[in-house]
Amino acid sequence: MRLKTLLIPAAVAMACPATVLADEGMWMPSQLPTIGKQLREAGYLGDPADLADLTKPPLSAVVKVGGATGAFVSNEGLVLTNHHVAFGVIQYNSNAQRDLIENGYVAADRTQELPANPDFRLRVTTGFDKVTDQVLADTHGKTGRAFYDAVDAAGKQLVADCEREPGMRCSLVNMFYGSDYYLVKQLELRDVRLVYAPPRAIGNYGDEVDNFVWPRHSGDFTVLRAYVGPDGKPAAYAKENKPYTPPAHLQVASEGVKQGDFVMLAGYPGVTYRHRTAAEFADQIEWRLPTTVAVLKQLQGVIEAGGERDHAASIRYAAQLQSLKNSIKRFSGELEGLQRSDAVTTRREDETAVLDWLRHQPDSQHEQAAIEQAALLIAAGKDARDRDLLLGLLGPQSQLMRAALMIERLDVERAKPDAARETGYQQRDEELLASQLRQISRRYDPTMEKALLTALLHRYQQLPAAQHVPEFDEVFGRTPAALSSALDSIYAATRMGDEAERLRLFKASQEVLRSSDDALLLAARKLQPALLRMDEQRKAREGDLLRLRPSYMKALMAYRQTQGGAVYPDANSTLRVSYGKVTPLIARDAVTYGPLTSVVGIVEKNTGKPPFDAPQPLLAAIHKGDFGRYIDPVSKTMPVNFLSNLDTTGGNSGSPVLNARGELVGLNFDSNWEAVSASWMYDPRYKRAIHVDMRYMRWLMDKVYPAPQLLKELGVP
Amino acid sequence: MRLKTLLIPAAVAMACPATVLADEGMWMPSQLPTIGKQLREAGYLGDPADLADLTKPPLSAVVKVGGATGAFVSNEGLVLTNHHVAFGVIQYNSNAQRDLIENGYVAADRTQELPANPDFRLRVTTGFDKVTDQVLADTHGKTGRAFYDAVDAAGKQLVADCEREPGMRCSLVNMFYGSDYYLVKQLELRDVRLVYAPPRAIGNYGDEVDNFVWPRHSGDFTVLRAYVGPDGKPAAYAKENKPYTPPAHLQVASEGVKQGDFVMLAGYPGVTYRHRTAAEFADQIEWRLPTTVAVLKQLQGVIEAGGERDHAASIRYAAQLQSLKNSIKRFSGELEGLQRSDAVTTRREDETAVLDWLRHQPDSQHEQAAIEQAALLIAAGKDARDRDLLLGLLGPQSQLMRAALMIERLDVERAKPDAARETGYQQRDEELLASQLRQISRRYDPTMEKALLTALLHRYQQLPAAQHVPEFDEVFGRTPAALSSALDSIYAATRMGDEAERLRLFKASQEVLRSSDDALLLAARKLQPALLRMDEQRKAREGDLLRLRPSYMKALMAYRQTQGGAVYPDANSTLRVSYGKVTPLIARDAVTYGPLTSVVGIVEKNTGKPPFDAPQPLLAAIHKGDFGRYIDPVSKTMPVNFLSNLDTTGGNSGSPVLNARGELVGLNFDSNWEAVSASWMYDPRYKRAIHVDMRYMRWLMDKVYPAPQLLKELGVP
Repeated sequence: MRLKTLLIPAAVAMACPATVLADEGMWMPSQLPTIGKQLREAGYLGDPADLADLTKPPLSAVVKVGGATGAFVSNEGLVLTNHHVAFGVIQYNSNAQRDLIENGYVAADRTQELPANPDFRLRVTTGFDKVTDQVLADTHGKTGRAFYDAVDAAGKQLVADCEREPGMRCSLVNMFYGSDYYLVKQLELRDVRLVYAPPRAIGNYGDEVDNFVWPRHSGDFTVLRAYVGPDGKPAAYAKENKPYTPPAHLQVASEGVKQGDFVMLAGYPGVTYRHRTAAEFADQIEWRLPTTVAVLKQLQGVIEAGGERDHAASIRYAAQLQSLKNSIKRFSGELEGLQRSDAVTTRREDETAVLDWLRHQPDSQHEQAAIEQAALLIAAGKDARDRDLLLGLLGPQSQLMRAALMIERLDVERAKPDAARETGYQQRDEELLASQLRQISRRYDPTMEKALLTALLHRYQQLPAAQHVPEFDEVFGRTPAALSSALDSIYAATRMGDEAERLRLFKASQEVLRSSDDALLLAARKLQPALLRMDEQRKAREGDLLRLRPSYMKALMAYRQTQGGAVYPDANSTLRVSYGKVTPLIARDAVTYGPLTSVVGIVEKNTGKPPFDAPQPLLAAIHKGDFGRYIDPVSKTMPVNFLSNLDTTGGNSGSPVLNARGELVGLNFDSNWEAVSASWMYDPRYKRAIHVDMRYMRWLMDKVYPAPQLLKELGVP
Repeated sequence: MRLKTLLIPAAVAMACPATVLADEGMWMPSQLPTIGKQLREAGYLGDPADLADLTKPPLSAVVKVGGATGAFVSNEGLVLTNHHVAFGVIQYNSNAQRDLIENGYVAADRTQELPANPDFRLRVTTGFDKVTDQVLADTHGKTGRAFYDAVDAAGKQLVADCEREPGMRCSLVNMFYGSDYYLVKQLELRDVRLVYAPPRAIGNYGDEVDNFVWPRHSGDFTVLRAYVGPDGKPAAYAKENKPYTPPAHLQVASEGVKQGDFVMLAGYPGVTYRHRTAAEFADQIEWRLPTTVAVLKQLQGVIEAGGERDHAASIRYAAQLQSLKNSIKRFSGELEGLQRSDAVTTRREDETAVLDWLRHQPDSQHEQAAIEQAALLIAAGKDARDRDLLLGLLGPQSQLMRAALMIERLDVERAKPDAARETGYQQRDEELLASQLRQISRRYDPTMEKALLTALLHRYQQLPAAQHVPEFDEVFGRTPAALSSALDSIYAATRMGDEAERLRLFKASQEVLRSSDDALLLAARKLQPALLRMDEQRKAREGDLLRLRPSYMKALMAYRQTQGGAVYPDANSTLRVSYGKVTPLIARDAVTYGPLTSVVGIVEKNTGKPPFDAPQPLLAAIHKGDFGRYIDPVSKTMPVNFLSNLDTTGGNSGSPVLNARGELVGLNFDSNWEAVSASWMYDPRYKRAIHVDMRYMRWLMDKVYPAPQLLKELGVP
């Protein structure tokens, strides 16, 4: 791989080098007026100032749906999102007699709209206030753990105050790595209903085979409707509830897109690492990704080998195996992409330019020192990174061990006032923790769990002495033989495999808990001090990084300003806007992927077997060729998906894609394989987002699985 | 697959339907003046009349190299052909000390040019005469076997007369399925030398992984030189030989190609089936290809299973296994392509149009009757096709059995006058037959041979009684148990595994041979009458088809003429010219392959391991970016390969690709996977040919592995 990045000479470099920042950016709405000139030059026809407040129209039409995005498309609460985002709702309403996954669903009228699973949530952002001063008020002069605690306490207080208003869910987010803090306030709608879903073979055409693939041919959309109580306030499902009137809704465009068209997108991207340091980029490429992939591949091997021997166990671990495979695929893709884009060089050159510039600024010694300290702290993180990676996987990759560690930790936290408890272990979290304990029975097998722990702890045993933790060595021994014997003893003498016993321990008082002689619980108790100590160290480090990183971010922003540019914060599940254009992808030498697919591709891919088993009504409609007003004037056929260079990441699923007039032209649902590394670096040569074409959705609702009342409500002919 | 072909509605059909005949055609040079208007309209700037005689310049520069093509590129006998065509020459000159395969070769001067393997031949066509009247002179009133024999005898006589001239190799070819016959006369050059070859990792970059693949990045070329004796006549290698002065040589173009440019190609395509009947198309798709693939896959399984048990045997059968895999891949691709193009429908519609037209022509009853008879004869071929396929594979898929059958057949043929002997069993063929007998020892294992024969004969035993042959049933029994016992007895009691014994039997008189009690020889002798009988039937059928098929071909040609078109004959290893343009490939919905690749792709594909292990000097030269005059003005980098819609098939390897002025711009070396079915049907959507760009060859000879004297001889700066 070195070859690839080193040997591309200037003479053969792409027309569009990786350092060009065109169309990159997940902008906070409040930043849009600042970059209004670029936005208008890119083709936006509206006034960027109108986009500045995400709690006001039109952006207030964009809502959070689960961990993803959706948008209101009527003033009676209709929400458009992805089929895969609403999949739980479809699944919840399906059974052997009425398989909505397989057949899709068209609610004939409002009475036919089906309630979502009770834990399904839709969140409308109603407040987004900068609270930096409040959050940092008590941090002055503090460092490390104290700094962390001051931020944590202030944040928890702000959230608790905010959530006093009924129906609200609040959270504290930090922007630019601690430079700024915002309090996000969201109206939580709990009665959401299924209105329209295409069959699986349309909504998820191509499934895993086509996942991350362009060209794509998926009708990945679903229509929901939000309801509120008769008083207009959020309420659980009740027959007498009425449709919610959203603060805004989007208009469907009358025309479709073509290559080169301006498009923009608003949504809730989850997490990116674009402003990490060059050293962190190098660490990700040289150590974290390859090491993680190697460890996860070993765990995959363990589950596969165990499944060969025991079919019942293979079923219990199917989801864990699938998740490992997904992670391996994604991390491998990220590694490949970062190498392909030569991300470290690009990042290092930019960082050097920023620091060079800073050195020439007056009175910048303090900032320079902070940046240097942050760099030292980051470098020091390497000392125990192998251990932290392996021990960090013990919980997530086990079932009973995780349960024991959680019960013991909860015991520690319950002794504190609720506000001082660890995030995730507060009273508001206990219901979720209990439900996790219940799910274990369907996912646990003692032989498999021991094998997985053995794989991780063998690796741990081979680490240099400096990385060893006395408590772990005591519990699991220092040799493979000791480990094997320890695990056998622990799992032979635990009753936690029994659900009732787990829940009993979960609910038990400290006194009852401490009197238990359960071997696994005892082991977890012995490990607890080490875990708390490691947690302490992590928080102290995080506190210092929150304190120190803003110096670099500020320098970066000031430097960019001298270049006439602006800096967007890394993604953190808050509403962001991205703009760009409908763009082909030059995937490799002499291979170009066009930016629009059509129903021709559905027929080409169709084998009649899942995942390429388009339903007969769709095939018949394609065969008939009655595409009416939805036909693409360029290809003369029916468009299905399109590709843009919009800046997206996980969480952007279901984001509305808008044209230059702010009208709805599509629905974001995936990105391409080459763009997996975009969480670290936006490479304009490869970063693409994949959208369902609004024309395809309208055609399906008009001609294939008709829902005329819905089209009427959407305000389209 | 039905779905794919049935459901593409008119509204989504490609811009370029399969029935359009644009750029299709492997034209006989004599036809070019006839289609001169189209040729000029396509962009050819020369006079089509100048291309009419393949024995005169410029086409006399195009020569046959082994089973493929090459071209003279200097007046001192330099020949440009593919690396894979000249591979035997490179291999012959390689050894552990001097590995020319790995390192390539640049002859510093003429004294360094290395002699080819003694059986390597280069053929210059010096005569191409229509001899239809002579060949058919004795056929009048005859049918079946008699018709066949009359043609066969006349042809053998013409060839024998022609070959009386020293240094000449002659052959009879038939055009338009017996409508016309030509006597081809070729000067056979026997002293050919290696002048320039790139390393394997350039000449065969991508190897099997990239075989049939576009985009491609291979420098698949080699330069040879033809020598003659001091008297100017063909001679075996001798130090005092001198370079041959060819009748013509091609000029290298000063500029390269770009998308849309006119290109043409001349070469020796092997065999096509474009003018077979619709019924034969259907048979190929519905029976022959799937059945053959199933049988060959079973044989592949036999060899793989045998190789698992016995490593030594797996080595002996590696080549046979490779060949089976290639055939399976090719046949599967052919099937896929014919289905994708819906070849039967296209062919049937055209055939119906021709026959409809014929019915309306006066005095066409005789032609119509002949066409009907041919159709009946073709349909009758289905009666024993399963048997013929299986028994036809007994020889080619065995070693010792093939040897025994050949020796017995030779015994039959030797009793006849040489001119009356079966083709392939004449005196001129005996040297080749003996060398085949010698090679058996390296490719034979008794257990494996028995297993292969068992697979074929099991299938034969399951055929309906009507397809059974008494002699085969007698020798091999009618049940699997009898077969097993028969094969065990035969192979336990044969001495033919010994090379000396095989050669003794090969040379033995009839008397000696008949007295042999070798079990395998005895079995072959028992089968012989059946094989001769089946041969008789085949020849009788072929005789009638040669007699009857011309009626359809004549109708087709007359019909095309009414449409302003012309008909080219199916390929038969004679010189043909094809013209078209540099063309991208729309492989599927939203996927376009550009028509030129560049060195960027070499770096992208390079893994450092075979087959993607570009040599350091190449990588360094790419890195340096010194592409000089060879740079592509569009991509601003170094072109490597290009794609055209030229009509090619096996045998066209090494064909020179010329521009509108008839100058050399590239070298044909492969076609794309989607075009495997082109031997039956040219589908303009998918048929592409892959060429090495002349600029890449020149750059390699100029900057990477320099050979300035060669560039000088080629007449380029």
